[in-house]
Amino acid sequence: MALNEPLNRKLRMALVGGGQGSFIGRVHSIAACLDNRATLVAGALSSNPERAKASAPDYGIAEDRAYTSYQEMLEAELKLPEGERIDFVSIATPNHVHFEVADAAIKAGFNVVCDKPMTFDLAQAEQLLETVQANDAVFALSHNYTGYPLVRQAREMIASGELGEINAVRAQYIQGWLRTSLEEEDQKQAAWRTDPSKSGAAGAFGDIATHAYNLGRYMTGLFPDQVSCSLKTFVEGRKLDDYGTAVIRYENGALGTVTASQISHGRENDLEIEIDGTKGSLRWRQENPNEMIYRQNGKAHQILTRDPNAPFMNSMGAAACRLPSGHPEAFFEAFANVYASAFDAMAERAAGKSVEKKDTVYTNCYDGVEGMYFIQQCVASSGENAAWVPLKHEAARR
Amino acid sequence: MALNEPLNRKLRMALVGGGQGSFIGRVHSIAACLDNRATLVAGALSSNPERAKASAPDYGIAEDRAYTSYQEMLEAELKLPEGERIDFVSIATPNHVHFEVADAAIKAGFNVVCDKPMTFDLAQAEQLLETVQANDAVFALSHNYTGYPLVRQAREMIASGELGEINAVRAQYIQGWLRTSLEEEDQKQAAWRTDPSKSGAAGAFGDIATHAYNLGRYMTGLFPDQVSCSLKTFVEGRKLDDYGTAVIRYENGALGTVTASQISHGRENDLEIEIDGTKGSLRWRQENPNEMIYRQNGKAHQILTRDPNAPFMNSMGAAACRLPSGHPEAFFEAFANVYASAFDAMAERAAGKSVEKKDTVYTNCYDGVEGMYFIQQCVASSGENAAWVPLKHEAARR
Amino acid sequence: MALNEPLNRKLRMALVGGGQGSFIGRVHSIAACLDNRATLVAGALSSNPERAKASAPDYGIAEDRAYTSYQEMLEAELKLPEGERIDFVSIATPNHVHFEVADAAIKAGFNVVCDKPMTFDLAQAEQLLETVQANDAVFALSHNYTGYPLVRQAREMIASGELGEINAVRAQYIQGWLRTSLEEEDQKQAAWRTDPSKSGAAGAFGDIATHAYNLGRYMTGLFPDQVSCSLKTFVEGRKLDDYGTAVIRYENGALGTVTASQISHGRENDLEIEIDGTKGSLRWRQENPNEMIYRQNGKAHQILTRDPNAPFMNSMGAAACRLPSGHPEAFFEAFANVYASAFDAMAERAAGKSVEKKDTVYTNCYDGVEGMYFIQQCVASSGENAAWVPLKHEAARR
Amino acid sequence: MALNEPLNRKLRMALVGGGQGSFIGRVHSIAACLDNRATLVAGALSSNPERAKASAPDYGIAEDRAYTSYQEMLEAELKLPEGERIDFVSIATPNHVHFEVADAAIKAGFNVVCDKPMTFDLAQAEQLLETVQANDAVFALSHNYTGYPLVRQAREMIASGELGEINAVRAQYIQGWLRTSLEEEDQKQAAWRTDPSKSGAAGAFGDIATHAYNLGRYMTGLFPDQVSCSLKTFVEGRKLDDYGTAVIRYENGALGTVTASQISHGRENDLEIEIDGTKGSLRWRQENPNEMIYRQNGKAHQILTRDPNAPFMNSMGAAACRLPSGHPEAFFEAFANVYASAFDAMAERAAGKSVEKKDTVYTNCYDGVEGMYFIQQCVASSGENAAWVPLKHEAARR
Repeated sequence: MALNEPLNRKLRMALVGGGQGSFIGRVHSIAACLDNRATLVAGALSSNPERAKASAPDYGIAEDRAYTSYQEMLEAELKLPEGERIDFVSIATPNHVHFEVADAAIKAGFNVVCDKPMTFDLAQAEQLLETVQANDAVFALSHNYTGYPLVRQAREMIASGELGEINAVRAQYIQGWLRTSLEEEDQKQAAWRTDPSKSGAAGAFGDIATHAYNLGRYMTGLFPDQVSCSLKTFVEGRKLDDYGTAVIRYENGALGTVTASQISHGRENDLEIEIDGTKGSLRWRQENPNEMIYRQNGKAHQILTRDPNAPFMNSMGAAACRLPSGHPEAFFEAFANVYASAFDAMAERAAGKSVEKKDTVYTNCYDGVEGMYFIQQCVASSGENAAWVPLKHEAARR
Repeated sequence: MALNEPLNRKLRMALVGGGQGSFIGRVHSIAACLDNRATLVAGALSSNPERAKASAPDYGIAEDRAYTSYQEMLEAELKLPEGERIDFVSIATPNHVHFEVADAAIKAGFNVVCDKPMTFDLAQAEQLLETVQANDAVFALSHNYTGYPLVRQAREMIASGELGEINAVRAQYIQGWLRTSLEEEDQKQAAWRTDPSKSGAAGAFGDIATHAYNLGRYMTGLFPDQVSCSLKTFVEGRKLDDYGTAVIRYENGALGTVTASQISHGRENDLEIEIDGTKGSLRWRQENPNEMIYRQNGKAHQILTRDPNAPFMNSMGAAACRLPSGHPEAFFEAFANVYASAFDAMAERAAGKSVEKKDTVYTNCYDGVEGMYFIQQCVASSGENAAWVPLKHEAARR
Repeated sequence: MALNEPLNRKLRMALVGGGQGSFIGRVHSIAACLDNRATLVAGALSSNPERAKASAPDYGIAEDRAYTSYQEMLEAELKLPEGERIDFVSIATPNHVHFEVADAAIKAGFNVVCDKPMTFDLAQAEQLLETVQANDAVFALSHNYTGYPLVRQAREMIASGELGEINAVRAQYIQGWLRTSLEEEDQKQAAWRTDPSKSGAAGAFGDIATHAYNLGRYMTGLFPDQVSCSLKTFVEGRKLDDYGTAVIRYENGALGTVTASQISHGRENDLEIEIDGTKGSLRWRQENPNEMIYRQNGKAHQILTRDPNAPFMNSMGAAACRLPSGHPEAFFEAFANVYASAFDAMAERAAGKSVEKKDTVYTNCYDGVEGMYFIQQCVASSGENAAWVPLKHEAARR
Repeated sequence: MALNEPLNRKLRMALVGGGQGSFIGRVHSIAACLDNRATLVAGALSSNPERAKASAPDYGIAEDRAYTSYQEMLEAELKLPEGERIDFVSIATPNHVHFEVADAAIKAGFNVVCDKPMTFDLAQAEQLLETVQANDAVFALSHNYTGYPLVRQAREMIASGELGEINAVRAQYIQGWLRTSLEEEDQKQAAWRTDPSKSGAAGAFGDIATHAYNLGRYMTGLFPDQVSCSLKTFVEGRKLDDYGTAVIRYENGALGTVTASQISHGRENDLEIEIDGTKGSLRWRQENPNEMIYRQNGKAHQILTRDPNAPFMNSMGAAACRLPSGHPEAFFEAFANVYASAFDAMAERAAGKSVEKKDTVYTNCYDGVEGMYFIQQCVASSGENAAWVPLKHEAARR
């Protein structure tokens, strides 16, 4: 199969953000290029022009396409011949910059892959969704955990009814890195993530609870109804929540819980989800992503290992594998799967077809709106003594 | 060391409940006698007189001490010479019978070891506490998970400040055995546990969430303030909750969560607790009880294995071990540790000393009152749309 | 069911060895009495008369039956009325004493439960087997790991052909406690176990490799043909091996490996076995004994949890359980299962029946001969540059 | 840092083998390009010219550089200007082709990355080593498991004496995919791997035991002395071994074991190694590569997680990480680390410097000779009833 059919060429990528000191910029670059379906050709790698320039060689970006701002980049790229011009922009900046870059890139005719949470607030998210719709762009949101093969396997198992009706979803994302006031020690990651002017209304809930919530939504398809949320800030002087729990009522009567922590000693990226259906239950952990436990009363516990050739794997699960079983795949490969699904759509768009934007394998702009709504409503609920507040957004996937 | 110093003889045990078909009666018998500190000499093993008699040989109870009711038993035993008479009564009946048996046994001068939840409702519990206080009896409540060596290890670690201030406690107890309407299939255990007239106001929350809640209280000593609880009944026709989540505010500002399920396919007795302190975090699972994970930022994850000889074990942890490391101890041994701690007190009482009743290593009548209050308030909160309700009971341990 | 049918009374136990400082004596006492089928009534707890007396109260042994030598004990017990006299003798002494105690006890008409390795050398073992046969005694050898429910489950699975033909057995028993010259620090356990005059011809291979080898034999029933063994002594000055590997050729062409270590830092009692059959494979670890992994190509890995009520459990597995799944059972319960199986036979013998001595559920005198032969041949092979030496003993179970 | 300093450009890669149906070709391509330090520009993807051409678009190789043989490729590339010509050739063919391709590529002035085992037999390996030495080429051998960060961490820990003197190494590589006669079902991978004319003298021992052996050598640096090996073929009609065990005597007196299986039901790529030193022990498993267990008597078991920022990580370990802890890295990233280390050397060579060829971080031609010697001597020993045969090769790293 040729690359990016029916386009039959590599896609050209630009990166915004990701300058020296960034973690996630490198991730985007590796993930996007992993399958040789894209090349990183341009970048506006930092809001600091000098760092923007200095960071380019790390990525193999030529000097003349190492721009000092995204505005300059979009303008310059549009002037290039179609056969050289970028196809999509990956946004790896702090949250408060996502909207303007994405909005401008889409309006300039490019596709976008954007970090989550999608925007600074819900209003921006809703506006961005309109832009995406109006421009028929491909917009992928990097809820990267949805790219793990066994997550997709679970999604299809549940969609096909293998677990029966879903009654309960327990998700947690536990970290420890913000146990101390790292933001006061000039740690760049900590600084912006705990700064309400850059991160948005929530801390742990914006950064990681959104992943846990999205994972449950993506795997089960359950539609949310209401949420009651308790946010806490345990580290003195911190401006945003670093711990919290949300209880979620789904429309079908199921009960969900999402707990997020940034203050649990020694915990790394312990995203874990348990799903109870009337016919079976699943458990999956991001830190050990090549296996998922499937249980049914009366049977031995089944460890489903990521195995593209196993009879128990379904098509979504198998399609997301690059290696046979026992050779572990991990974070980059999952991230690359989100890109790969988006590339399929980009290639179609480039070939002149209209693309599905809502019911996609990759997480998209609709998921982004829902994520921002989740953050907004959790903060609202927490501010009202954990009152139940609505969690249905009309743009959310059904 | 002689047995049961300063008493220097085995204690004599009577069992109420535990007739054929019972699971927990056998557990009490094995646990109580494990260390050769007690002998089972009498019983009122069933409310059905024939079964009461027929069950006695299984336990090696002589025919003349196989009584057909607890009333008969207490009366007859009191007539025996002091040197033959029972020392304590273990109660292994359905919940609604606990109070009357315990109350009568204590008033007859005996000590009591009682299954949890302690009584049918809070009023009974408060009344029983008065009886215990008035009679200076030893009363142990079988929150048996508190007997695991590493649970006691954690308790002392936290009490001594090793984990710093506690911020968060996440406990869950996940089972699957009531996934279907087992109560309609003449399964004895299922029948009474889902019957409000025998089990009390709550199902899963009375049966297992109380264990999870108690475990957090026992390990951390955090004092509760308020609870918001959401109970669900997922199996059609069931009369009590089979799933639920409680969010707990502790007085010191910590946030707790307790989730219990009886409807999670394939899950057995998956009681798990995670505790986050400012200096370290702990994680322990009942199904793998010989290890506990201790984490501190910047250090390797530490697996503390149950090891009476290890320098990292504290006195409470080491004292609860019977075997060197690597030879696993499990459920019976933990249960036996609750008995062992109570036996220490019984031996003292028998020697004429007054015994501590509140601040004990074994879970006691005060814990029982608190457990019943927890159940009552969870049910109340759930009935009011998960409103916050008080969770401080004056009798609770501080 | 009454206790010890058709005998219908508890069995009376005597303990030889197990005085203060002993670990295994307490294990025998707890294991034998766990199910209330036996009472410990007599003992010769130490070769030191004072310690023998002083240790008795710990076990609740009356002063007049706390003997100062096994000879005295046997003589005195024989003088007691039949209804008081002991039924069996448990031997928990260092290895070099096993033979004389067992031989005398059997000849005196009692049954015996003996620690492994059975004797000091093979000649003693063969002689003891003759004594057992001649006296129709029940003789159980405490290869206690064979009492774990999932080990017995595996035995029946394999015997019934579920795994097909067995091709390979990999067993290892890894410890670390003898990493340093503990024997020079007056540690009693270390002292006798590393002393050839008390322990016999082998160190690690006598103490723990025998367990690993026996476990493979017990689970698979494969009959051995030849062995090639490499023993090492890594701790300077030690007189016996503290590490070694044996390669075993079974008669059916299967290949086995047994590795034992006492010098692996931090390792506890890590006895692990992997068995490969043409239809399936199994893996079990003693330190996590409530689960066994069962694998078949093309299927999810199956975790068989100890669950007496599960459809996947066979009769041997289920019969060895005392608790429902999720409530872990462990070392004592496994040890007690060896006793329980021996008690069945003792009760039959006491009722005047002749008892099966070779093809028993509990490990027996034939296994003991084979174990001594294994030790002897491993030492011989190692002494001849790991030459292949025979491993078939005519007394071994087939 | 610019890419491939001091070269400051991407390296140009050619792939030999890897045509449609290949697994390992894709792995080389992804691994080599993961860090954006190389581009795949040319290939001779199959010995079948049509398939060679047809496979090129999958890799994004332009039609004019999709050669139909490696000879054609080398010739054509040499005619290209230096600024376009390939820098290195990756060899992903069956074993019997390795030598001729590698030999020709090196003599043509290119660097080589070659699959293991390095050649068809030892003679070829020794000859290839001479070629590499004579041409001052960079030659990397894809013992890819040595690229895992925690493997390199262990290597440095041991080299620096943290574990003390090494006494024992237990390595095993357990698979199940050749449990049946897959080679008779037209499965390409199975066909050549079980064919002595393509795979060489050994089956499982050539394919996977070499990895396990190499891993022990790489991590510990122990120098081998002798080996005794037992090879088995359990699947009827198979021409090469599918199971075996080797016992290894190291020069320092340590004892090693290497076990390999291709016939263990359900096992995937279960490469596991345990290392015992006088000061500590390590255990690592490829299927769960982001953690390593470090044990020391008297301390809690330490789980070292891959964490570039942790104080416990050494420089080799940290340098091999791309992601912070908790975001797992896996097979591709480890493979890419072998490439990355080789790229460092290639960039130096391209800049005119002479490069170290023996004492390298990546596994190299010397390791390849040793691997072939290991295979040869294991087969020889097995043929002589597992006799001890020498295992010292003068070319092996010390």
